[in-house]
Amino acid sequence: MKRPIGIFDSGVGGLTVYKAIRECFPNEDLIYFGDTARVPYGPKSKETIIEYSVQNARFLLQHNVKIIIVACNTSSAAAIHHLSKITSIPVMGVIEPGAQQAVESSSNHRIGVIGTEGTVRSGAYSRAIHQLAPITQVFSLACPLFVPLAEEGWLDHPVTKTIAAEYLGFFKDKDIDTLVLGCTHYPLLAPVIQEVMGENTRLVDSAQAITTHLGTLLTDEEETQSGKDSFFVSDNEQKFSSIASRILGYEITQLKRVRMFESWFAEE
Amino acid sequence: MKRPIGIFDSGVGGLTVYKAIRECFPNEDLIYFGDTARVPYGPKSKETIIEYSVQNARFLLQHNVKIIIVACNTSSAAAIHHLSKITSIPVMGVIEPGAQQAVESSSNHRIGVIGTEGTVRSGAYSRAIHQLAPITQVFSLACPLFVPLAEEGWLDHPVTKTIAAEYLGFFKDKDIDTLVLGCTHYPLLAPVIQEVMGENTRLVDSAQAITTHLGTLLTDEEETQSGKDSFFVSDNEQKFSSIASRILGYEITQLKRVRMFESWFAEE
Repeated sequence: MKRPIGIFDSGVGGLTVYKAIRECFPNEDLIYFGDTARVPYGPKSKETIIEYSVQNARFLLQHNVKIIIVACNTSSAAAIHHLSKITSIPVMGVIEPGAQQAVESSSNHRIGVIGTEGTVRSGAYSRAIHQLAPITQVFSLACPLFVPLAEEGWLDHPVTKTIAAEYLGFFKDKDIDTLVLGCTHYPLLAPVIQEVMGENTRLVDSAQAITTHLGTLLTDEEETQSGKDSFFVSDNEQKFSSIASRILGYEITQLKRVRMFESWFAEE
Repeated sequence: MKRPIGIFDSGVGGLTVYKAIRECFPNEDLIYFGDTARVPYGPKSKETIIEYSVQNARFLLQHNVKIIIVACNTSSAAAIHHLSKITSIPVMGVIEPGAQQAVESSSNHRIGVIGTEGTVRSGAYSRAIHQLAPITQVFSLACPLFVPLAEEGWLDHPVTKTIAAEYLGFFKDKDIDTLVLGCTHYPLLAPVIQEVMGENTRLVDSAQAITTHLGTLLTDEEETQSGKDSFFVSDNEQKFSSIASRILGYEITQLKRVRMFESWFAEE
């Protein structure tokens, strides 16, 4: 039996990862889970991000997936080691692929990383980059307003450019030649970010980077039929569906909302 | 035995309500719960907001509260009737008090309301205002970036003014004399909002409005000792604590994190 590849994200942003994987692997069955009931993960604590990520991975495991892709940078940064402990199938985050592509891109060994508070606080990109290229200098910056701006759809709004200029001014004296877009939402703002950074800075999108890594794990099963798509969200299926068709370029059909079992608060 | 008043919010914003209540009722014991693990509620579906609100109310009921105050406008708009069904104690939202104060404030019967997507979509303020003053014209607008801007602390940043001007331009030809700040975060942006709207528009803050309503429910127990404060959050207690001391003007001491029992996803 053909086993699907599972992908999860805190919301809609991981669809950029989904799209890249679908384009590279047209025969694979893909299952996507977006935790739209608890989005965003970026400002939340490491402990909570791990808890949510484990629940999401368990949901995918119920569907007999053969690989779990953690599309969310914040989850990848906080939870990847915990996820590897709950299953024997491969679990891949976006941090290592992004770090590798950044190292390959950089000539002057000066790399910038932008992401959510959670991702930057974790230092995961710095560690991954230093493991590959110890002499590299890494400059990391949280850009909390980029996600709400992307969600609001203000992709080329003058305000977005002003905010980008304010945040990215941090890199002015850092002389970086490569900037990692360390959040799945940020590729949506890539034109503005590129404009502010200037054309001498190369942008690294981990959605693209992960497909190379994934290719090394997949054996060629020579299947000719095309792969199936299944989407699950924990809330707001209509909103998800409309953003999905914009990102993917086609209408999604297999979309279901999943719910949690009754839960309760207990004091620690 | 003295029973406390319970207050819940999706996060830190409800502390503006907490502060107003504490100032008016120094002898009451107050319990606050902020659902920082699942914040924000504004963009989420009605169904999910109801589910979260019921869980939060049940948590307060475990502490034997005598009244539940729903400080969150989004929860008040979506869930107040559901909450009244699960308990016999009074449940008060911020919509009716805000609506009443707006009606009292308006001379020309033209009122604006700003809030989250969820609050505006619900039409709750319009309904509440029309019930009190049927001839009033109500103009409602969602301002999704105001919460992240307030959370980022850009309270008087030039970008905040630009965004406020863009959103509030909607009211330019509406001739309103009163604007309801229909989200607990918005009072933090009141100076910018007032500047953009001009001094002829009165701003209504439901945190203030609710204390009058609350007073009608409380019998004077002539207690002389001062009331106790207890704070509970579902995540990020340190961040909560630092924002709380800024809003309340003193350091909070009784703060605990609460966690959910193991939960799980199930398909519908």
